[in-house]
Amino acid sequence: MNAPVFTDRCDLPPGFRAAGVHAGIKADKSKLDMAMLVSDVPGTQAVGLFTTNKVKAAPVKLDMARLADGRARAVVINSGNANACTGPQGERDAEEMGRLTAEALGLEEQEVLVCSTGTIGKPLNLEPIRKGIGLLAGALRVEGGPEAAQAILTTDTRPKLCMTTLQVDGKPVTVSGFCKGAGMIEPNMATMLAYICTDAAVEPESLRAAVKAAVDQSFNRISIDGDTSTNDSVFVFANGAAGNVPLSPGHPDWTQFQTALNGVIFDLAMKIVWDGEGMSKFIELRAKGAASDAEADKALRAVANSFLVKTGWAGTYPVWGRIADVLGYCGVDIDPDAMGIDYNDIPVMRNGMAAGTPKETLDAVIAEKRYTITMDLGTGGPGSAVLYTCDCTEEYVRINMF
Amino acid sequence: MNAPVFTDRCDLPPGFRAAGVHAGIKADKSKLDMAMLVSDVPGTQAVGLFTTNKVKAAPVKLDMARLADGRARAVVINSGNANACTGPQGERDAEEMGRLTAEALGLEEQEVLVCSTGTIGKPLNLEPIRKGIGLLAGALRVEGGPEAAQAILTTDTRPKLCMTTLQVDGKPVTVSGFCKGAGMIEPNMATMLAYICTDAAVEPESLRAAVKAAVDQSFNRISIDGDTSTNDSVFVFANGAAGNVPLSPGHPDWTQFQTALNGVIFDLAMKIVWDGEGMSKFIELRAKGAASDAEADKALRAVANSFLVKTGWAGTYPVWGRIADVLGYCGVDIDPDAMGIDYNDIPVMRNGMAAGTPKETLDAVIAEKRYTITMDLGTGGPGSAVLYTCDCTEEYVRINMF
Repeated sequence: MNAPVFTDRCDLPPGFRAAGVHAGIKADKSKLDMAMLVSDVPGTQAVGLFTTNKVKAAPVKLDMARLADGRARAVVINSGNANACTGPQGERDAEEMGRLTAEALGLEEQEVLVCSTGTIGKPLNLEPIRKGIGLLAGALRVEGGPEAAQAILTTDTRPKLCMTTLQVDGKPVTVSGFCKGAGMIEPNMATMLAYICTDAAVEPESLRAAVKAAVDQSFNRISIDGDTSTNDSVFVFANGAAGNVPLSPGHPDWTQFQTALNGVIFDLAMKIVWDGEGMSKFIELRAKGAASDAEADKALRAVANSFLVKTGWAGTYPVWGRIADVLGYCGVDIDPDAMGIDYNDIPVMRNGMAAGTPKETLDAVIAEKRYTITMDLGTGGPGSAVLYTCDCTEEYVRINMF
Repeated sequence: MNAPVFTDRCDLPPGFRAAGVHAGIKADKSKLDMAMLVSDVPGTQAVGLFTTNKVKAAPVKLDMARLADGRARAVVINSGNANACTGPQGERDAEEMGRLTAEALGLEEQEVLVCSTGTIGKPLNLEPIRKGIGLLAGALRVEGGPEAAQAILTTDTRPKLCMTTLQVDGKPVTVSGFCKGAGMIEPNMATMLAYICTDAAVEPESLRAAVKAAVDQSFNRISIDGDTSTNDSVFVFANGAAGNVPLSPGHPDWTQFQTALNGVIFDLAMKIVWDGEGMSKFIELRAKGAASDAEADKALRAVANSFLVKTGWAGTYPVWGRIADVLGYCGVDIDPDAMGIDYNDIPVMRNGMAAGTPKETLDAVIAEKRYTITMDLGTGGPGSAVLYTCDCTEEYVRINMF
């Protein structure tokens, strides 16, 4: 088994087509604002994982219901309007988007998923969406992945693509995806969306478990600003076009498939952090010596969401005192006199005090575009966790002021 | 009983003296960096409320122990160094500050409190502190309140004073205080400190309860950035010089005293928000329709600590969609389809949707320097709460980058 290679492309697997168009939701005509992704294979399996926010956008509620049977053939997506906090009319609008797409593609409504991303609280204008669905249905093509990836962006500065290939039963299989998100925050908007396709055949329950495992160590391990949106959704489609024996944990190629899926989804998640609004530093945060993994996770999220720490990361000083402060108030078990902090592998705090590392040594680390901060909570417990995050710059404030 | 009048002064009550000097902790010689506050009355009662952070600065630990008997005569304070995360040496340094002060004033060490505010994790240099204590002891005077208030500042842009007077048993009584804090955050620093003096005689347990009640509705109801510091401390000294019958809830002037204490402490707390680092808007956040007061409070703190919401407040758009998003993820019971949001008394969201208020009407509200946002969580429950906070501007990021 060779180590998989992940590339910044989105060549769709056999049996999938996609498109992206400018429908007129965004005023700027140069910006694509609608996308469609379709599987030509009847009975294509689909798994969706959705925001845990109690305020769920209308399309999220629709998709959750439609994916109860684990199958979907198409997804239609608009950017520029989140169709969230839009009440019963918003739900009717999401249904209408699905109905029009089903008609245009000759599918059952139940087979069509709907996604929206953009401003919260603004009624959806169906006029451009109707037009867009017609355009998309005519533009679908095997090479359409990158266009679709472009069309779902909001404040993202670039599309986010990833793909890999593997062999299952000796047959070539592709796992390919794209996503959007510049943090979970955008100006008056809030959405992270990801779409992953594979032509592998996978047992339904195994697919769901595989996706959940992959998301738990990728999208669920990033934080730009701690704001969980109303629209976050991750979809994985498996159309079985590769003709392999359906994958499940007993299959000899299962591990390789899970590795490929993990890798594509992890890569997409990291691309969201690297494109975090206004970010200038990528920080890998690690916690250890916690009473449990859950405690380690709680500590990491508190640090990653501290205004004081995040703005400090944008500066030129190792802010370990601020990190120690957060560990003290975030509600997890710590030993203040045994805590430690490392920047990369350089001790910065030991036993709750400055470790005495020369300033120049630390300056060299924090001058890097990406570095790792490891916190030992000092309890001696076995808990550990990792979280990928970024700093908070003046540019972040500018982006989100308007 | 007349309504008390609160003024932006700090005339110390009879029996108190204070001073502020430049000792040399801060490089800038024009900046005062040490303060002292002394009661000349033996047996002066003192109450201290301290940070709940598990990482407590050395002086905080010292003061907690010394106030176990409810008495103190003096407090010595330095700005520029928090003496936090400084290990056993930091504890010895705090004790030494207290010992030198006790010697200079002819007091028992047990009667002296010690406070520090400034950089976390840096060893305290006792050289300037020794010199400062000598200067302070010689400079103590009845008129020294404003100088002491000036000397404890770090990134604050102005001193924060408040006083009021009342009659107890027909005798004049003063309640007078000062505090510092520009948020709970400062560059590599973290402290909020407050000192309130009164010449009223108060029963020990009643004083403690009165202070707790006053702090619960003032300092415990503000948030600049959600970061609870290692040094937060509020002290109230009551020296009984007024010669009244000691106050307790059965005393006819008790309510008036509690009102005066509440007012002075509330005013000082609001002054911290108004001087929040980089702040451009003062926001009074209210929650109602929550399952309980605790749930209402949790919702308010989540909203007040959302990067997305706080940066939005700095802008020119009512960010109710972001607020709805936070209410959805913050873990409290809500009804998404019954939630409402008002700006001042103008409906912005109703039943989870835009209320249809014209943009110009909302623009006029958010153009104000101070306004109120009221959130109805929609559960129909009796829970409510209030929190005073401010926006997050580019200036905030600049201040905390360095």
